[in-house]
Order: sequence, then structure tokens, then C-alpha cells
Amino acid sequence: MSTSTETNPAPRTGAGSEFDRDTAVTLREPGVYDAELSAGWTIIHAVNGGYLLALLGRALGDHLPHPDPFTISAHYLTPSAPGPAVIRTETVRTGRTLSTGTASLYQYAEDGTEVERIRVLASYGDLDALTDDVRTSAVPPAFAPVDQCFSASDGPAPPIPGSSAITDRLDLRLDPACVGWAIGAPSGKGEMRAWFGLADGREPDPLSLLLAVDALPPTSFELGLKGWTPTVELTAHVRCRPAPGPLRVSITTRNLAGGFLEEDAEVWDSAGRLVAQSRQLARAPRD
Amino acid sequence: MSTSTETNPAPRTGAGSEFDRDTAVTLREPGVYDAELSAGWTIIHAVNGGYLLALLGRALGDHLPHPDPFTISAHYLTPSAPGPAVIRTETVRTGRTLSTGTASLYQYAEDGTEVERIRVLASYGDLDALTDDVRTSAVPPAFAPVDQCFSASDGPAPPIPGSSAITDRLDLRLDPACVGWAIGAPSGKGEMRAWFGLADGREPDPLSLLLAVDALPPTSFELGLKGWTPTVELTAHVRCRPAPGPLRVSITTRNLAGGFLEEDAEVWDSAGRLVAQSRQLARAPRD
Repeated sequence: MSTSTETNPAPRTGAGSEFDRDTAVTLREPGVYDAELSAGWTIIHAVNGGYLLALLGRALGDHLPHPDPFTISAHYLTPSAPGPAVIRTETVRTGRTLSTGTASLYQYAEDGTEVERIRVLASYGDLDALTDDVRTSAVPPAFAPVDQCFSASDGPAPPIPGSSAITDRLDLRLDPACVGWAIGAPSGKGEMRAWFGLADGREPDPLSLLLAVDALPPTSFELGLKGWTPTVELTAHVRCRPAPGPLRVSITTRNLAGGFLEEDAEVWDSAGRLVAQSRQLARAPRD
Repeated sequence: MSTSTETNPAPRTGAGSEFDRDTAVTLREPGVYDAELSAGWTIIHAVNGGYLLALLGRALGDHLPHPDPFTISAHYLTPSAPGPAVIRTETVRTGRTLSTGTASLYQYAEDGTEVERIRVLASYGDLDALTDDVRTSAVPPAFAPVDQCFSASDGPAPPIPGSSAITDRLDLRLDPACVGWAIGAPSGKGEMRAWFGLADGREPDPLSLLLAVDALPPTSFELGLKGWTPTVELTAHVRCRPAPGPLRVSITTRNLAGGFLEEDAEVWDSAGRLVAQSRQLARAPRD
């Protein structure tokens, strides 16, 4: 996790960070935000779903009285494209410790009409107000050390076939146990694990966790399937403000059946805390 | 799973089933349904969240062009009480294989104003249109045989403290490995497992799966915590139409921290298929 931070000064957050710049939203009127979907977070032609979730999460965090997404569900309706977008938010309920709201991201058809891309329903709270009480037996799965993992520039096969822009913005190091697919020898297990960072050194926060849960190659690659796995729905729980340093992301699939699969992600911070959990339902590749 | 079906004729579905009668909705005008929250599905004073999800799921299945909930997310806003309710649905998008909609359940304040209880966002499809392709390595966890499990009428302690009505409507048989809490000896593991059926013998379907994922005692009991674990958000994926016969429900908690916990449920049908998966974020008991 060092090369890119040596060549780029490490912005913590703010305008100096690619992620913060590309998830910025501008208040147009109460509850309505203008945004620009960056071409920098695309895989082939598709805008990454985790990036979009972070963008919607930022708008909702601005609109609601609580700052942090505790649980956020997104239903992906139509494919997003780089370019202008508008986000419309609505407060559903404001409580003392949690508030609930919806957000919709729209883009514009050729005739100027708005086409809805994503609908989100979320409950926000304040992570800093949580108690320190941890009664969990959860331990991270075994990750190979970073220096034994594979980045986008290693090996003959690109880690994400056909991908381009997003790999430049992520510092993703895939566990060697989960890269068989890249050399035509998938493990047959529905597992994907990687060390995760932002290439410009921007430290993790609740919004970048929303990106992290949907930024790895799909587990279906290791199940021997190629092709695209478009997300139908993704729900993420942010459980703790992540400590600075690299994240570990573990994704598993238990059930690939009937043309659909689930992907369960766990995100661990450098302090060994389980900071986020997510599950998505996606369409399986046709094969 | 035999006593209750011997004493009651087994209604498959329809008005003869307690579950179907109590989740019935009546169309008032397009998109608006009247309902009556039954006191028969309460735990102490609270209406069970799975029952409420099934009720909302039925209304949305009526409103949307596709019949079955593929992925449904519910945010629980304020506590529901037995009595009249109104459900307002909205179609977000209609596609060829999936349609997406929202539903809100309201009850009435003393002055007659509507108070929102639950907001739902869901994508529906047609389970019968799915392929038979199953590429899953998932196997059910070990369940003790039904005749070694504990029902509400067994033992000195009621399986759900203070509960009443709902236990009469469920045929729940708790795995002996997960009932230590009832005799003051919780296992310390975040696990709860039970055989699940409806007491009147009504066979499982996608709607009763929405009940099944939130009908067991909370995992926090086996973590040594007593008291209530109110759901903040629950997302369920229905992956397959369940075969007739008893279901097996396994719930696990990995992370009880900061005053919140997640509960992951898997539901297996009598044919050994993983028919539903769910995850909820709940508030942990104060201890």
C-alpha cells in the first residue's frame, strides 16, 4: 500500500482527494443536489455502484440531521453514465438518535426528462455517539500479507478484465487465494478478498466504506463465471468509524442460483474492527 | 411439527389460514390499502416485525406487476400497535423481469392524523420464471431433529419471555444448542436455530418467509443479554419458492457493538434449498 502514497502527497479528505472531489454535491434548493458522475470510477462503461452509493450517501448525510449512514439500502434501477445528475432527498422521520430518509439519483434523457437511476432508503445516526462496548467474537478471515497480494499492475492479466478508470483510483491488493480466475484457474469458491485503499492515500471514512463494499472483482469470477453481475439491491451497515490505514474487504457468496447471487461483504479496519457489513443481490452472468 | 396439524385441519392458504387472514389487505383506491394489524402476532405489546413485513409485502405484490418479493428492505420508524392501518404504495420502476416499488404503513394518532410506522423499498419478480440452475455450495447448518427440539409448551421457562399471542400461531421448535438462555445458561454464541411452521399447518410461501426471518428469539439472548432488540432495518431476499413442509431457520450475529447488532437469517426448505436470506440491524438491549 505504499507506491502510490509515495508518488502522491496523501490528502486526508477534501478537495485534494479524488474521491471527495468526485462525490461532491451542490445544493440547488432544499433537498435537491446537483452532481457530476465522474468517468473516473467506471468499469468498462458502467459507473461503479459503490461510488454511486457514496455519492447518494453524501447528499443524504447533508440533508438529514444525523451525519453517518448506519444502514443504507440502494435499488439500482437503470444504468448510470458519466455526466450530470440530480439527487432528490426526502426526510421520512427524524428521531433522537436516528433519522430516516430517501434519496433518488436521476440523469437526463435526450429530451431533458429525468430518468431515475437509483433509489435509496437509509437510516442515519452519529457514529461518534456510539458506546465503545464491543461484544463480538468476529475475527477477520485470513488475509495474505499485502506484499504477497496482487495489484492491478501485477501479472499478465488485468485483475478486472476490461476495467480501466477505477483501477487507477483504487489501491486494491487481491489475496493470491482469490486470483485463480485471472489465469483461467478459478478456485470454485465464492470468495474474494483484498486489501483496499484509495490510490491518492485518502484515509477511510464512512462514505468510502460505501465504495469499499462494492469495489472488488465479483465472487462469480472465482465460481468460474465471466461477465457482468449488475447489482439489483445493496444494503450496507456502517458499524464503526474506521481507523486510518488500509482496509481488508472479504466478500463471500453462498447461493448462486436461479440467475441471481448474493454477495456478502465484511470490511475490517487497520485496528481489526468490523467497520462495515453489506449484502447485495445481483444478477448472475449468463455464462 | 405434528401436534397442531393433527388437531387443526391444515389450510394451505386463503381465508382458512390465520396468517393469510391477518395479512389481508383491502384496496381502498389505486395504490392505497386498508389493513387491520392483528393482536395475534404480538410479543408482549409489540407487533412482530416479520408479520408487518409480510403484510406490506402482500400489498406491494398486489400493486406491482410482478408477484414475488426478490429483495425487500424495511426501515422500522415507530412502534406498531394492533388495530387499523393504511398502506400507501408507489411504483418506482417497472421492468421486464423486475419491478421496484415503495410502501409505507401508517396508523392513526388520537387526532386522526397518520403516523408512519414502516417504510419499505423492494424489487419484485416472478420466482416461477427463474431457471433451475443451482451453483451453490451452501449447506444448512446442523439442526437437531425436530423431536429433540423445544417448543413453547416444553420446559419450565417460556421460550420467549413475556410473549404470548405469536407463540400460539407458530410451530417453533428451538434447537437444544440454542436454548441455554431459557435456563440461565446462554451459550455465549450469537446463534439461534429453529424448525419453523405455522401452527395451523399453512404451508410456506414467499410471504410467510418474510415472517420466518424475524420470528425467532433474538440471538442476543444466547449472548447473555435480556430485553428487547427493536429492529432498525431488515432486508430479506427470497431466492426460491419454498417446498411444502417445515422450514429451518438459522440466525447468527457476528457483531454486537456500539449498542447495535446485526442478525443474519438463512431459511432452508424441506428440500434442502436455501430459500431466503435476511439481515437486520437492531438496537442491542441496554443489558
